Amino acid sequence: MLFQDCLEESIPPSHLPWYIELLAIALLAQSMKLNVAGVRAGEAFLKTLQGVTDPEEKRKRIGKVFIDVFEQEARRLGRVEYLVQGTLYPDVIESVSVRGPSAVIKSHHNVGGLPEKMNLRLIEPLRELFKDEVRMIGRELGVPEEILGRHPFPGPGLAVRILGEVTEERIRLLQAADRILDEELRLADLYNSVWQAFPVLLPVSTVGVMGDERTYERVIAIRAVTSVDGMTADWARLPQDLLARISGRLVSEIRGVNRVVYDISSKPPSTIEWE
Amino acid sequence: MLFQDCLEESIPPSHLPWYIELLAIALLAQSMKLNVAGVRAGEAFLKTLQGVTDPEEKRKRIGKVFIDVFEQEARRLGRVEYLVQGTLYPDVIESVSVRGPSAVIKSHHNVGGLPEKMNLRLIEPLRELFKDEVRMIGRELGVPEEILGRHPFPGPGLAVRILGEVTEERIRLLQAADRILDEELRLADLYNSVWQAFPVLLPVSTVGVMGDERTYERVIAIRAVTSVDGMTADWARLPQDLLARISGRLVSEIRGVNRVVYDISSKPPSTIEWE
Repeated sequence: MLFQDCLEESIPPSHLPWYIELLAIALLAQSMKLNVAGVRAGEAFLKTLQGVTDPEEKRKRIGKVFIDVFEQEARRLGRVEYLVQGTLYPDVIESVSVRGPSAVIKSHHNVGGLPEKMNLRLIEPLRELFKDEVRMIGRELGVPEEILGRHPFPGPGLAVRILGEVTEERIRLLQAADRILDEELRLADLYNSVWQAFPVLLPVSTVGVMGDERTYERVIAIRAVTSVDGMTADWARLPQDLLARISGRLVSEIRGVNRVVYDISSKPPSTIEWE
Repeated sequence: MLFQDCLEESIPPSHLPWYIELLAIALLAQSMKLNVAGVRAGEAFLKTLQGVTDPEEKRKRIGKVFIDVFEQEARRLGRVEYLVQGTLYPDVIESVSVRGPSAVIKSHHNVGGLPEKMNLRLIEPLRELFKDEVRMIGRELGVPEEILGRHPFPGPGLAVRILGEVTEERIRLLQAADRILDEELRLADLYNSVWQAFPVLLPVSTVGVMGDERTYERVIAIRAVTSVDGMTADWARLPQDLLARISGRLVSEIRGVNRVVYDISSKPPSTIEWE
């Protein structure tokens, strides 16, 4: 209930994501005694993604901007030589053929997505570990449970959860859906029972009915999985009344959505993220 | 288990749909003593749907071909004056404003989809009844339970369950999915507990993994609802192990599908069919 508890009614909903970022940074600074600077680079990402629909192309462009921003900030701070990343082993396995004949499944922005020429030297201390192992180390080091227990978040951000072109309006819609899902999972005390849970905005409109009127609006897919290390995963058997409540809230609280589906696929042959 | 029981291993899968049509016609002829002629007009429908993606446009074009075929067949038979249709009241309510200010939700091909000029006179004895009422009448008249209990099937056929353009390949894919879903529901003895259950082919590809290879394939949505009269409906709370089995079979038995979702939306604000 970390961030939710801190939110006051007086903050307008459109400012929530930024406010949550601020809180996250404050938490990192306080609990870990880190000197953290937040950078708002949303516009650069939006610009590079304009008109792009291919998932691999999206990931590569995001990786490029990601590094550009880092290098720019590094120059601003003075002499910076290293980029430390929390890359995990599954990212490596799925991005490049390292130790065998595995093909590229997805270019994780912090691995396959990095530009070949880069002025920062890369340090990835967790590169050969799975997430459950990293969490064990974190516990040893005293990292707060609120940070350790957070669901994995994709490197390329919500862009891979917006199928088709990424626009500011779609990001806002997906953020609202994300907040509802997160809230309902925590209220049901199930947040920590699933490996990951998130909404995906589909580039699909379907017919609905509102009062006596026809609607033709978007579909949101809910993805929730159980997993030990992210390499394989099963769809979470969430209680059906919880699913009904989430579906009802998404449709009634988010303008432009009239249908909700629940992903019932395992990895393999699906993946956790859709793109 | 009606049609499934009759199917012999020796019939190639690609001929199944046509064989099922033959059986259905034979059943109508035998049980109801009707003189029924089957017409294969698939090519005309495929042709009129080429390149069409708008749901209302699809429905109107299908309605047009539907009447064309009827008139053509009528001429072939000699002097035919009437077209008898099983139009029900919900089709009427959703297609046209008859008794109040309800807007057009969907043009049902047998109501709003009919061309304005038509050489056959229309008889619709069930036009003011709901399906549960029609089933009661059917029982009184001795119509076999296999026909009475069949799930509603949309007038425009599978075309409204293939989002985006309708092609022969996509129809085949959806028919295969339909057969798997139907079979699993009957095996679980749940066919009669749901109002309707069907797959929808989404015009969306997502990333998956097969062995060490990346895949980028289609998504199928499963829609199953409970309802009394079709005017309102709730998504069916199917057992989760059944959903897992259906999802597993769809992905492993149908080439080109790597993800399955389950529709968890009610009507309203969604509708039962997606288009």
